Amino acid sequence: MALLTKQSVGCTAAPLRHKPQRLPSVAVRCAAATEQSVLKVSRNENFGKLQAGYLFPEIARRRRAHQEAHPDAQIISLGIGDTTEPLPQYIADAMAKAAAGLGTREGYSGYGAEQGQGALREALASTFYPGMVAADEVFVSDGSKCDISRLQVMFGADKSIAAQDPSYPVYVDTTVMMGNTGTHNGTGFDGIEYMVCTPENNFFPDLAKTKRTDIIFFCSPNNPTGAAATRGQLKQLVKFARDNGSLLVYDAAYALYISNPDCPKTIYEIEGADEIAIETCSFSKYAGFTGVRLGWTVVPKKLRYADGSSVHADWNRMMTTCFNGASNIVQAGGLACLQPEGLKEMYGLINFYKENATILKNTFQEMGFSVYGGEDAPYVWVGFPGKPSWDVFAEILEKCNIVTTPGSGFGPAGEGFVRASAFGSRDNIMEAVRRFKEVYGKQ
Amino acid sequence: MALLTKQSVGCTAAPLRHKPQRLPSVAVRCAAATEQSVLKVSRNENFGKLQAGYLFPEIARRRRAHQEAHPDAQIISLGIGDTTEPLPQYIADAMAKAAAGLGTREGYSGYGAEQGQGALREALASTFYPGMVAADEVFVSDGSKCDISRLQVMFGADKSIAAQDPSYPVYVDTTVMMGNTGTHNGTGFDGIEYMVCTPENNFFPDLAKTKRTDIIFFCSPNNPTGAAATRGQLKQLVKFARDNGSLLVYDAAYALYISNPDCPKTIYEIEGADEIAIETCSFSKYAGFTGVRLGWTVVPKKLRYADGSSVHADWNRMMTTCFNGASNIVQAGGLACLQPEGLKEMYGLINFYKENATILKNTFQEMGFSVYGGEDAPYVWVGFPGKPSWDVFAEILEKCNIVTTPGSGFGPAGEGFVRASAFGSRDNIMEAVRRFKEVYGKQ
Repeated sequence: MALLTKQSVGCTAAPLRHKPQRLPSVAVRCAAATEQSVLKVSRNENFGKLQAGYLFPEIARRRRAHQEAHPDAQIISLGIGDTTEPLPQYIADAMAKAAAGLGTREGYSGYGAEQGQGALREALASTFYPGMVAADEVFVSDGSKCDISRLQVMFGADKSIAAQDPSYPVYVDTTVMMGNTGTHNGTGFDGIEYMVCTPENNFFPDLAKTKRTDIIFFCSPNNPTGAAATRGQLKQLVKFARDNGSLLVYDAAYALYISNPDCPKTIYEIEGADEIAIETCSFSKYAGFTGVRLGWTVVPKKLRYADGSSVHADWNRMMTTCFNGASNIVQAGGLACLQPEGLKEMYGLINFYKENATILKNTFQEMGFSVYGGEDAPYVWVGFPGKPSWDVFAEILEKCNIVTTPGSGFGPAGEGFVRASAFGSRDNIMEAVRRFKEVYGKQ
Repeated sequence: MALLTKQSVGCTAAPLRHKPQRLPSVAVRCAAATEQSVLKVSRNENFGKLQAGYLFPEIARRRRAHQEAHPDAQIISLGIGDTTEPLPQYIADAMAKAAAGLGTREGYSGYGAEQGQGALREALASTFYPGMVAADEVFVSDGSKCDISRLQVMFGADKSIAAQDPSYPVYVDTTVMMGNTGTHNGTGFDGIEYMVCTPENNFFPDLAKTKRTDIIFFCSPNNPTGAAATRGQLKQLVKFARDNGSLLVYDAAYALYISNPDCPKTIYEIEGADEIAIETCSFSKYAGFTGVRLGWTVVPKKLRYADGSSVHADWNRMMTTCFNGASNIVQAGGLACLQPEGLKEMYGLINFYKENATILKNTFQEMGFSVYGGEDAPYVWVGFPGKPSWDVFAEILEKCNIVTTPGSGFGPAGEGFVRASAFGSRDNIMEAVRRFKEVYGKQ
């Protein structure tokens, strides 16, 4: 069986770069495994194009391996960007109450609207998009990651895609899964328009050199660089999308972390965005809902495909057919987040993580590193020029017992950086700082 | 604006049967709307193939219209199949406790494994598949509907698909969305292999006449007919899939409603199924989790695509990339369902709804209708030969103020039937029975 598994892995890996039918040698290598396969169903070739595992499970795997090799190591994770602080009381209580209420006839509810509860849609619209977005343009979901994947299904398999480089890996991975790319060429995927964001361009892409695509994924404040686009930059971006007739998917998952008054918290502050932009957002990093699961996506009714048909109508069809609504218990939590008491608690959490970001940023600055982000976002982006990110990741894990995220995991232009997440208890952040200084402070 | 909307609707409807570029008349009709469209992005043509709205929102729309026309009507829903009874105490308490626990440092958790919590995967495997399925072959999710849609993304856009007719609309709709069909030909979609299930064939398809497809969707006990396949039938089905090298997606969402000892509760009871079958299941109809959202999908490691590569590995990639785990609060509820106390409560709920099904079935039988299902499933399938289902639906809504589901909504072979769901309070079921007898009892 072990042998068979090895052979199968060989077969799995092979289609990464070639079509099997052109490669008799692969056919020979796969013969044993093929004999074992009862199914005459071909693998979705787009899955064969994907690189290794999804980034964060891969990091978790390496962390486990390190822990096994060093059972006594007190590992601190500044890796995946996972919230650590307990839910604020008012918000946790609202969900506990909703759950207990389901045990009563008055409090019970079954299927809700797939688009989300009316009250929550109203509260999201009025809290985050007053005068900009109507309640029925807000679709509640189980999170942005899931919505991005559903958006790709709605867009279909004949679209060209641009994404910031570096960026949250889900934009590119789901593009590959839908068949909208070629294979990986060693640096990136053929067919993706990588919008390079580096210190040299102040983390805003050179739009004059950016090719027109159907869809543009843009995240601000950016994960992983922590850069928040200014009003002027977003005006350029919206103009670029409008001039090209491109649909902008604007990921605002970290918008409430913005301090800079010149950086809008939603794309709909920019004139004309409501005809070209979809915005995704999430309670994950606002209210510590990473494990609770709640997000939303705004699809303005003004969005029309080239044939004049409504994007909103297709998104509604997508959500009603492929989704069944976010959990009613969790939606009660979302609604609590948007009450005066809940908002206060939520901003309290955000400020706590922002303080962590400041501490981390200052630490790296003091040690003389080139460091970015950390002011309008919970991520600090640290440069290790000339060093492969995975090597830096491995070194920090080995020497400091700290998990970071290698920049190259976010795209080719992330090479030479690592991302440090500000999500952690204060004790852990201070201990991480101590270890960083001990190892890197003297360099 | 109203005018623009009308024009746009015209444009939306047009691509249902034609490619726009071949139809200058469509281009002319769309001109006004096209001028309004900033986007130069083409609509996903597969969405244009879909029929009207997804079935259940359409029923909800008609219900609302009826209520508006008859504000005093006390409408009873035997329509969507939505659970009505409060959650049992032990299960509700577990979720309330988990939610409250998130407000404490000890009880807080962030991102969990995308595949589900280890303890829940273990409990699902040992409770429902002892000796058949390993814990890491069970993937926890936010529900079967969502998993079916994700399965389609994993299968990709070059697959041929068979589905029972009638069947849960999501199999066909998601197949259309992925581009694996032609257009709707007035009866069904070109390219779908409809496996007709009627009283004439005892609701089991004639496999000798069924064309080979890559994927077979099969739901037992069946939604909407209520028919549960026997061991002998499932052996035929597994043999058919194995002989054809087809991948069987077995939807067992109602398995615990089975009374007939000759009907297996999982496809993995059938020898050889573990090399060809994926099984989806859900807590929705077991524990009243329709609004709470929790399901699971079993992907055995033995499943190999034709090239020998692992289906399990691709599903793992799918779930880690396009999903972020079911809510931690909700998973605590799922785990509670599988403890001795929770199992007792869950079976109590199921038996309650089964009694409802018996009451409905007996009522229709007494009135002389041809009625099926209702013994191994929470659905009663009532024949109105020669009458269009939507007309029967409208008549029952008009005369009885009762919402049912028109059989044709589940596929062409559902024409002439309506589905009555057994999900309702006992009072509502008895009142529905009274109204049915009043209107149809004398015929």
